[in-house]
Amino acid sequence: MVRTIEWRDGVVYTIDQTVLPKKEVWIELKTCEQVAQALKEMKIRGAPLIGVATAYGLALTAYHSKALNRKDFMCELEFAAETIRNTRPTAVNLFWAVDRILKKARETRGGIDNLKKAIITEALRMADEDVEVNRRIGKHGATLINDGDVILTHCNAGSLATVEYGTALAVVRAAWEEGKRIKVFADETRPLLQGARLTVFELMRDNIPVTLITDNMAGYVMSKGLINKVIVGADRIVRDAVINKIGTYAVAVLAHENNIPFYVAAPSSTFDFSKSAKDVVIEERNPEEVTRIGTETIAPEGVQVMNPAFDITPMRYVTAVIREDGIITSKELKERLKG
Amino acid sequence: MVRTIEWRDGVVYTIDQTVLPKKEVWIELKTCEQVAQALKEMKIRGAPLIGVATAYGLALTAYHSKALNRKDFMCELEFAAETIRNTRPTAVNLFWAVDRILKKARETRGGIDNLKKAIITEALRMADEDVEVNRRIGKHGATLINDGDVILTHCNAGSLATVEYGTALAVVRAAWEEGKRIKVFADETRPLLQGARLTVFELMRDNIPVTLITDNMAGYVMSKGLINKVIVGADRIVRDAVINKIGTYAVAVLAHENNIPFYVAAPSSTFDFSKSAKDVVIEERNPEEVTRIGTETIAPEGVQVMNPAFDITPMRYVTAVIREDGIITSKELKERLKG
Repeated sequence: MVRTIEWRDGVVYTIDQTVLPKKEVWIELKTCEQVAQALKEMKIRGAPLIGVATAYGLALTAYHSKALNRKDFMCELEFAAETIRNTRPTAVNLFWAVDRILKKARETRGGIDNLKKAIITEALRMADEDVEVNRRIGKHGATLINDGDVILTHCNAGSLATVEYGTALAVVRAAWEEGKRIKVFADETRPLLQGARLTVFELMRDNIPVTLITDNMAGYVMSKGLINKVIVGADRIVRDAVINKIGTYAVAVLAHENNIPFYVAAPSSTFDFSKSAKDVVIEERNPEEVTRIGTETIAPEGVQVMNPAFDITPMRYVTAVIREDGIITSKELKERLKG
Repeated sequence: MVRTIEWRDGVVYTIDQTVLPKKEVWIELKTCEQVAQALKEMKIRGAPLIGVATAYGLALTAYHSKALNRKDFMCELEFAAETIRNTRPTAVNLFWAVDRILKKARETRGGIDNLKKAIITEALRMADEDVEVNRRIGKHGATLINDGDVILTHCNAGSLATVEYGTALAVVRAAWEEGKRIKVFADETRPLLQGARLTVFELMRDNIPVTLITDNMAGYVMSKGLINKVIVGADRIVRDAVINKIGTYAVAVLAHENNIPFYVAAPSSTFDFSKSAKDVVIEERNPEEVTRIGTETIAPEGVQVMNPAFDITPMRYVTAVIREDGIITSKELKERLKG
């Protein structure tokens, strides 16, 4: 399996997710600013991958730093951290990664070379951990999947949203690897079509049966009894809600209405129990993402548009969360948070 | 206000709805086969307009008929009726219009000229009735709308779905004309984007404030308290359900979950109480409607696609239906159908 992001000698290589599946273009990022730009433009996307890219971005700053003393070095690193922090407000993995790298830097003793080495090692470790964590999410999640299940997913929580293997799609992959004959329905996920472009691409590449639908067909296929489980990823999980790609809330409500279990697969780095839904900033993106698809303009010029990138699914619609440390029902989660 | 469809001397003129809003192209249809083709390709769409186009299609057959006796004439007409019947299976207005024209033909006495005249007059009457019926739907519906309301609609149930004025948008227009300061949220309505292309176009032309969202944002805007009412049209209303553009069911469930009234505006010709949801054929359309947008291909080649054109909203999610003869709550409807 190919990793979505690689570090080699002070250069980050990653696949440009805005042009898939038409072209598989690998981009080279040599500075933290370039990483920040790629995050903003969603060439890099998916909460776990955003986390690792953030760590790599800061590692680039460290690697190429010409600072002669610790103070200047830390100043550079903090500046780079601030640049990354201003790219996308919702996925908590970004802030988690910044904090982890800065903590490592602050804790590390010795000279600049020592600092550089510690930061780069930490970033590489985070990437390796992501792979390991996703494998464990897959393994736990697969216990929920029966032979013959048809699973609906929204957006892309696959290998392209992580270093490899995925979160929601880790569960699909693990079940498939165990020999369970499953099928997937992929919501196309407007406006940026991560479902149609990325989830379908990944699953077809792995020969896992997938059917593409538009977002507004999810309710219909559920009501027709075609879906047994829904599994999605998450950009942030707070005390009372899951924040994920726009449209997740609708899928959760429709699953609930049709008595279909709704699972969220995410690493512990996506959990942010210090916060509630009301504390989370929902990123509003460029209206052109809605009014243009590729070169096609699909609406009259000058139309008013709303384009929130995420929505908020109250925890009552979530059957369970699937983490690297196991499956937690939303009831258990509630109990834990009380304690 | 411009009519969407016109009859002039044995030619039907209508606006090609597949190229709006980019181009306003009027097409000329001279045979019933051409009308059938335009229906299939959805150059003509919207349940009430489909009804009138059907009547006009049969009127074209009558107008241009060279039959010398009643039997040959009726044979031609029945053949044309069958051609139209095979275009789209879901909107009941199509079958209603066929039946009404055939009934008129069968009832009409006298020679071929008499028959031709009766059929053409009936078709023209159906177009005029549609306008009148929609005005009355608007007037009744407007009583439900308060100053300051924000109304979400799905697909296009506007003047472009009718001869003029619309059904769901008739309610919006009537409320607006009464001076109520309302706003509309329009779902883009994938795959064919009737919301983004047609509803937005119509409302902007009439200076009624409209905000475009993708289908999967409807739940989010409702959960944020931004929507007071949902109003949609219908392709068929049976005893236990509303059949309308794919995505309507999801919007209805989300409205229900958020305690937002969900109204269906439709002429009595859309009602088919002889049938239940289980009797209705849901048209499955070309997969390319999902995988291509204009010239853009948005998914990997060869992907499996499901493309149902409509879905089924159980009557329990419907607050009331708005018809030309008044507003009927779904409770009243249930009572009526029992009796």
